[in-house]
Amino acid sequence: MRESRRIIGLITDFGLKDPYVAIMKAVILNINPNVEIIDISHEVEKFNIAEASFILTSSLKYFPRDTVFVVVVDPGVGSSRRALIIQTKNFTFIGPDNGVLIPAAIKDGVENVYEILNRNFFLKPVSSTFHGRDIFAPAAAYLTLGTPLEILGRKINFNSIVKPSWATFKLSKDKVEGYFVYFDGFGNASTNIPADEVPWLKYGMRVRVNIHGKASLIIKFLRAYSEVEEGETLLVTNSFGFLELAVNKGSARRKYNLKYGVKVTIEKLS
Amino acid sequence: MRESRRIIGLITDFGLKDPYVAIMKAVILNINPNVEIIDISHEVEKFNIAEASFILTSSLKYFPRDTVFVVVVDPGVGSSRRALIIQTKNFTFIGPDNGVLIPAAIKDGVENVYEILNRNFFLKPVSSTFHGRDIFAPAAAYLTLGTPLEILGRKINFNSIVKPSWATFKLSKDKVEGYFVYFDGFGNASTNIPADEVPWLKYGMRVRVNIHGKASLIIKFLRAYSEVEEGETLLVTNSFGFLELAVNKGSARRKYNLKYGVKVTIEKLS
Amino acid sequence: MRESRRIIGLITDFGLKDPYVAIMKAVILNINPNVEIIDISHEVEKFNIAEASFILTSSLKYFPRDTVFVVVVDPGVGSSRRALIIQTKNFTFIGPDNGVLIPAAIKDGVENVYEILNRNFFLKPVSSTFHGRDIFAPAAAYLTLGTPLEILGRKINFNSIVKPSWATFKLSKDKVEGYFVYFDGFGNASTNIPADEVPWLKYGMRVRVNIHGKASLIIKFLRAYSEVEEGETLLVTNSFGFLELAVNKGSARRKYNLKYGVKVTIEKLS
Repeated sequence: MRESRRIIGLITDFGLKDPYVAIMKAVILNINPNVEIIDISHEVEKFNIAEASFILTSSLKYFPRDTVFVVVVDPGVGSSRRALIIQTKNFTFIGPDNGVLIPAAIKDGVENVYEILNRNFFLKPVSSTFHGRDIFAPAAAYLTLGTPLEILGRKINFNSIVKPSWATFKLSKDKVEGYFVYFDGFGNASTNIPADEVPWLKYGMRVRVNIHGKASLIIKFLRAYSEVEEGETLLVTNSFGFLELAVNKGSARRKYNLKYGVKVTIEKLS
Repeated sequence: MRESRRIIGLITDFGLKDPYVAIMKAVILNINPNVEIIDISHEVEKFNIAEASFILTSSLKYFPRDTVFVVVVDPGVGSSRRALIIQTKNFTFIGPDNGVLIPAAIKDGVENVYEILNRNFFLKPVSSTFHGRDIFAPAAAYLTLGTPLEILGRKINFNSIVKPSWATFKLSKDKVEGYFVYFDGFGNASTNIPADEVPWLKYGMRVRVNIHGKASLIIKFLRAYSEVEEGETLLVTNSFGFLELAVNKGSARRKYNLKYGVKVTIEKLS
Repeated sequence: MRESRRIIGLITDFGLKDPYVAIMKAVILNINPNVEIIDISHEVEKFNIAEASFILTSSLKYFPRDTVFVVVVDPGVGSSRRALIIQTKNFTFIGPDNGVLIPAAIKDGVENVYEILNRNFFLKPVSSTFHGRDIFAPAAAYLTLGTPLEILGRKINFNSIVKPSWATFKLSKDKVEGYFVYFDGFGNASTNIPADEVPWLKYGMRVRVNIHGKASLIIKFLRAYSEVEEGETLLVTNSFGFLELAVNKGSARRKYNLKYGVKVTIEKLS
């Protein structure tokens, strides 16, 4: 019986041309050769924390228990922003204290938060530009070797870490308020609102969608794009389980000039 | 002595920005952690079945025996198109019943065809948009664990499955008829005709190339692009072993405005 | 106790759409299923030997001892250029004799150079266009199985192999002369001069930078882009440890119309 290898999932905004991702993998395998590294995405828009966060949140539940996720979308690298390890019910998340880990960690159930501090587990000299290589990759690798979190850093309070404005949604009995957090290649606009957490929302229902400071639409919540005419707008549940504003054979992103992090309110009409 | 891991090769049109490919890998590793997953291509043009099919067919023979190939280029997902497992002499192919697996399966020698039906081996709830995650990835993973095909689905007749028009070529004693099935980044236009199956074709020979409804050219079958002047057209054997229409330092695709699936006839002249 | 798998790192200019990279991996795993293959970059600019060489040189030191690096950027494939294996202090390098391996090999300390010659270890028939598949990938795989270099080829003299003009830098007591060998996505222009090998260069110092036949600048050597105004030029140490010409929030590459392989001289001013 072969014991299976721990999995480390990587999300960065490094792209695949430069050797940054490969260097992180080399650092990991140098410390623990018996891990399985999975590239989740390295094509996150540069510094787009909301996008990285959505990719993480929507991938999460398919990964085996005890997967370690490392997210390096880190506009504040080199400043005094902290380096975090968040332990949740099933997973461990490693990345900068800029909010990128929060929605996924909340979704899985936060148990403990640590600030990475122990320089004995850093790759030295620590650069001011590439903590993915010098701090986050080593932390992930040592963690999969069984190094206790108390050795890598110190426990801190969940309340003390950065929460992004777009990390949560607000549900009431006939309204739900969230944020646009992801646009796919077709221009479909995903919110951060899980469809199955809005009990009053039923297929076929008419809703008022208010795009903060932009537009107020009256559309239907439907199962498939093809239930409206080409060029018409609808609300659907996307394949990640989130409410999504879409235009049949068109781009909601372009039609309403949507941006990452814009607030959206969906209101029951009838 | 360590037993070696089964290989699963993946071809999709998902691209590498969205987490779809990583989710398929996570689903596979959740079921069988001891497989080796190889990305063959995820940059197939959206819904381009011919292109995916060519990539599969031209990669095939380099893979170890018992490799499982999963191809998710699936414009009909959510409709009633069937999900297939095709067993061939050396390999197993998994994907939608839209023809994408056919040329590769025929090349290796079809032995058995199964329709995937057993919902106990699906990831639930099964979406109507992402069978790569919900049906094909689990099938591949269970297969590498040794789950019998009879358990995953039921045997069906090879004659009953979809055959693409561009899957075959027709050879006669002085003519061969096939299809354009792949354009590389330079605009070289590969047919689906294996050069070594056209016994009358010899290097240096003049041939008439008839591009269905477009043009009729008299060119030479040569070893290297550089044997004609810049901008001139020739017929070569590409590195995958197929006959290819090419323009030295130019793009055959653009010069003749070629499309995927267009018929081409090559005729012996002298 | 599980023995860890040998690592093979790959650098090519093949891109990720075509199946070339996957075919190389399949060939390797067919020969030795127990290796770990790491993609370093496949997005090297077509035929850009300097760029591939820089990516290799800057990744090197993060990889475990005994890693085998295979570099296939090979404009001379099919000609009489030789196929090389270079053994260095910690690593093995495999690729064409066009200079691409030289800076990395010199950096780690060349021990032995072999020309790959033994056709028994080639994939046959050997094409004239894809030695990555037919010669380099098999050589790497057999090497990780322990096949002696003397069996794969014959020892040759380091002096006999191709040295690129941009492979070395020349240091004197108040001047250092090197080459531009890498431009990142922002247009920052890396030289091949390791900052820590220029003893007289100190942060804050004014230097004269002479871009061969283009411009002569008087700028400062600083720690961070933000130490100059937007649009101003400076000299920094990049995250790979090399001296880099940069423009704060701009592109040095565009500002000075820089090309790969252009000579640059940096001179102490005060």
